[in-house]
Amino acid sequence: DILERPEGLELGGDLREVTIMMSDIRGFTTMSEHLAPAQVVTMLNRYLGAMTDIIMASNGTIDEFIGDAILAVFGAPQHRDDDADRAVRCALAMQAAMADVNRQNAAEGLPELAMGIALNTGTVIAGNIGSERRSKYGFVGHPMNVTSRIEDHCLGGEILISDSTRQQLRGDYTLTNQRDLNVRGIDQSVTTYTIRGRADD
Amino acid sequence: DILERPEGLELGGDLREVTIMMSDIRGFTTMSEHLAPAQVVTMLNRYLGAMTDIIMASNGTIDEFIGDAILAVFGAPQHRDDDADRAVRCALAMQAAMADVNRQNAAEGLPELAMGIALNTGTVIAGNIGSERRSKYGFVGHPMNVTSRIEDHCLGGEILISDSTRQQLRGDYTLTNQRDLNVRGIDQSVTTYTIRGRADD
Repeated sequence: DILERPEGLELGGDLREVTIMMSDIRGFTTMSEHLAPAQVVTMLNRYLGAMTDIIMASNGTIDEFIGDAILAVFGAPQHRDDDADRAVRCALAMQAAMADVNRQNAAEGLPELAMGIALNTGTVIAGNIGSERRSKYGFVGHPMNVTSRIEDHCLGGEILISDSTRQQLRGDYTLTNQRDLNVRGIDQSVTTYTIRGRADD
Repeated sequence: DILERPEGLELGGDLREVTIMMSDIRGFTTMSEHLAPAQVVTMLNRYLGAMTDIIMASNGTIDEFIGDAILAVFGAPQHRDDDADRAVRCALAMQAAMADVNRQNAAEGLPELAMGIALNTGTVIAGNIGSERRSKYGFVGHPMNVTSRIEDHCLGGEILISDSTRQQLRGDYTLTNQRDLNVRGIDQSVTTYTIRGRADD
């Protein structure tokens, strides 16, 4: 009964406009080669734990942890009019939280982590992806791939948003460093901006 | 008690030599733009279901579905002396099974899928990755990233194995098309081969 499923989750797959977030730690793999495995997992889980809490508090849907990367979306299964704004505020809160993550790392003699975050908005296919033996609510579409390519260009501490995300924003934010990125598999270049914070901060 | 945990799974993270498999469908995202969302999910899940069955029957550990990509490892949590051979035989069986997947797709007017598979062997950190709210048995290390880069070079229907996988093989296989790939983040190039089948086939 559709009234009993207000979020409109279609198991068979449907189109959703979402703001996609991908974050990772710059140079994490190389850094991990100089540490004991237990230290690497401790450091990784401290970061993932802190970021998971913030993403969930922002009503983001975590799709995956892929090594040190986090893939999340805002807008599925449930659409909200402020999906892009919540994604941006979530990214700003995540960057701010890295100071505390790094204080804990420093206290244990662990290296400082610097995270990049990419945000991109577009229409994707959302659905239960997988097999009878293993499935998950997941996403397919060019906007997913584009987000990953934008993430490749992020510096440590940076949040890069695509122009498609910028167009959805209702709040005022400080944007700098407009760039056009060439993305494999996409004919047109993708315009991105570095987001510094809310304009009233 | 270690005797009660014969697989030696260390929750805190430990080093494992594994053969990593990454498969995906060439051009899947572009193809999906010309189909209804439900058709895309049907087609994706048919492929993922068939491949999951084969990977599980080969004692592979599925790490993730990432869109149309499958990430799996052979050798963790449980090491077996034939990890690389099982990975290669699994990949050959997966390619063979695509004929049946495509027969089913054709019967429904869906396009033909062509899968690429990359295999690479190396030492990674394995452990429970994530947070208290969400965690999984996952893997970190350069060999994971290298596998993804090798996969970028796969043609449809092809299985590319790195030289590190080749060196672990006990069986005889037909290898062709030796190449040296430049991989971002790795100083040395990675030598790969196309694997055609078992030498006695």
